[in-house]
Amino acid sequence: MDLATPRARGARSEDVRRGNLGALLRHVHVHGPTSRSRLTSELALNRSTIGDLTGELVGAGLVREEPGGPSNRLAAGGTGTGGRPSYVVLPETERVQALAIDIGVTHLSVARVGLGGQVLARRDIDHRRTTRRMRDEVRTIGKVARELLGELAPNAFCTGAGAAVPGMVRARDGMVRQVPNLGWTDVPLGQVLAEELGLPVTVGNDADLGVLAEHVRGAAVDCDDVVYLAGHSGIGAGVFTSGRPLVGNDGYAGEVGHLVVNPGGIECHCGSRGCWETEAGEERLFELAGRPAGGGLAAVREVVAAVGDGDAAAAAAIRHVATWLGTGTAGVVNVFNPEVVILGGALAEIYAAAAPTVQAAVEEAALRPPREHVRLVPPAFGLDSSLVGAAELAFAPLLSDPLLEMSRLTAS
Amino acid sequence: MDLATPRARGARSEDVRRGNLGALLRHVHVHGPTSRSRLTSELALNRSTIGDLTGELVGAGLVREEPGGPSNRLAAGGTGTGGRPSYVVLPETERVQALAIDIGVTHLSVARVGLGGQVLARRDIDHRRTTRRMRDEVRTIGKVARELLGELAPNAFCTGAGAAVPGMVRARDGMVRQVPNLGWTDVPLGQVLAEELGLPVTVGNDADLGVLAEHVRGAAVDCDDVVYLAGHSGIGAGVFTSGRPLVGNDGYAGEVGHLVVNPGGIECHCGSRGCWETEAGEERLFELAGRPAGGGLAAVREVVAAVGDGDAAAAAAIRHVATWLGTGTAGVVNVFNPEVVILGGALAEIYAAAAPTVQAAVEEAALRPPREHVRLVPPAFGLDSSLVGAAELAFAPLLSDPLLEMSRLTAS
Repeated sequence: MDLATPRARGARSEDVRRGNLGALLRHVHVHGPTSRSRLTSELALNRSTIGDLTGELVGAGLVREEPGGPSNRLAAGGTGTGGRPSYVVLPETERVQALAIDIGVTHLSVARVGLGGQVLARRDIDHRRTTRRMRDEVRTIGKVARELLGELAPNAFCTGAGAAVPGMVRARDGMVRQVPNLGWTDVPLGQVLAEELGLPVTVGNDADLGVLAEHVRGAAVDCDDVVYLAGHSGIGAGVFTSGRPLVGNDGYAGEVGHLVVNPGGIECHCGSRGCWETEAGEERLFELAGRPAGGGLAAVREVVAAVGDGDAAAAAAIRHVATWLGTGTAGVVNVFNPEVVILGGALAEIYAAAAPTVQAAVEEAALRPPREHVRLVPPAFGLDSSLVGAAELAFAPLLSDPLLEMSRLTAS
Repeated sequence: MDLATPRARGARSEDVRRGNLGALLRHVHVHGPTSRSRLTSELALNRSTIGDLTGELVGAGLVREEPGGPSNRLAAGGTGTGGRPSYVVLPETERVQALAIDIGVTHLSVARVGLGGQVLARRDIDHRRTTRRMRDEVRTIGKVARELLGELAPNAFCTGAGAAVPGMVRARDGMVRQVPNLGWTDVPLGQVLAEELGLPVTVGNDADLGVLAEHVRGAAVDCDDVVYLAGHSGIGAGVFTSGRPLVGNDGYAGEVGHLVVNPGGIECHCGSRGCWETEAGEERLFELAGRPAGGGLAAVREVVAAVGDGDAAAAAAIRHVATWLGTGTAGVVNVFNPEVVILGGALAEIYAAAAPTVQAAVEEAALRPPREHVRLVPPAFGLDSSLVGAAELAFAPLLSDPLLEMSRLTAS
């Protein structure tokens, strides 16, 4: 007798239910209030299944239902014409929250984000560009996080935390391998943060989280091939290809900032010379514009403003960095053939100030076929792409298996 | 009444059967003779289903069965211990064939490949490096293909043809957009070849097909993150990331040869300057070694041999090209974080002649985390990776839906 099939089928039906619960929750998390009838068609499930799944998620306190009034019906993508009234399913934004943390070289942002992706409260701290000890940073984050979580309503909870770092993170265990601009090497940030916060913590590379946010709900929705360039002190890429994130063997893919573009050029902190970020990064801009190092985004904006005031050194500095931004972007276009390149951080400022220079360099160095359809755009989330992506990371376990996560939360 | 579920289920069970037939056929195509008991565990299906599927494929003439004798049992991965005798399922290699075509800058290879991936017969033609008209090339291929197909046994058939080209191919329709080294722009190669051969033809980029072959049955089996560098006159990359091919928005991803590595350097045929292939490609080697242009792989081997004879110019030329090969490979390592980089074509010769020089340049320009575990290896298929990959392309429709393909073949 062959028992394999019935057993496999039993397991499969339980998996299917968990998968469907996650799919429904993810749908309202990403798309907002959605009518039951629309969920039926979007998830390709029948009406009674959608009703059962919604009931379970309502019972778990993750979504709520409201009768689909005219305004809700429009928001939910309904036609507004007669027929049966349909309930609208909404994420419990205030009740279900996550902590998003963006550790930058010259900033630290910590936010409470609701299910559905809204930033509900945040704290931002400016840093001078200098090395910072990981454990000091964690203590700062802990202090700020406790403030933010103290504001939670009594029936609300925080499902976990996601943190973005401007460096390489090992996919297997979240070990932060290198954050050159902060002086961090092989630091167990996730583990130390989890102890500090008493929450599950997932750590990701800032550019990887930037492209995640822009792909899920930003400038690259419905684009399967996207590159997000995180340009602060360095330049890193987060990539979606054929609709899936580029990860690499250990999680380090996308280090485009260290492509050698100018051999024998300026020494890079990575030990090589002439890396892309040594020519197109902020520090090169400051040096050519005759300004002090480490000024961060505010100083980039000052250089851009100075061009308008007739500052020739500032103009030359912008031209230099914009040309190199274009040359490097051409390389990104040749390598990934993306539909969209999102210029994040300081790169958005450079592009806004000198788009024709950037475009001319792309034209010159990119092959014709991959550049025919590519669009260069600023991020939909401005400077917050990585922060919003960190929240997505924090919500991921809940969205993947809502009931398992809920039972973990009730047990703790 | 909700009819959606039963109808969807009905469609799904037919899809499942087609998917299972394809999966079984693909398994013996990739892994060779396999016992029924092993297929049962590998495909996670029960014994009677495997029996039914095998019966259908035997009936269609795509596989045959043999009793699992001791030697077959070993080949099939069996334990050799007692129990029921298990049948071994083999691909009908002689009966089911495809045509593989590799169009190179200095060569043309056409082969008959059997189901299971063996090259059964082939013709190779050397070309001088010069532009060739696409329609002349197609006529040559047609002549050679008719010779090869004339040798087929009466009960054998050719399921289709796959062709590799050293240029950019639009994924949507197979249009060959640019093959700079042959002087081709926007040529409908697949369509013209299909008319010439009277067979379905699929066209792919040579590096994309190289990595496909090495991933399926070569130097990168079980590696999810692989870069194959096709180094002939130019340099192109075929990439697998997280176990799936890197395609890009239109199919052009992987043009690493046109990353600018030496700004203001040598003019490239692409219109830019200082592209990687202008420094690490064959022509640069010939120029520095004081040899005529366009010699292809044979001339690369002559330069390598001349180093052994004390030719200082040859030694300097190899050093130059090997250093640039390492610098560019470091970029590939930084961008893709691959487990394996396969150095194809002339690059394998350069690496064999000057591995320490290549490795030193990789060490210098690659970041530590992504280079910790990366391996640089020659291709398992030598110069035939793209040819073997072209056969995989030709077999793909049959493997995806064996019975549909068989009914198409019987109808025609």
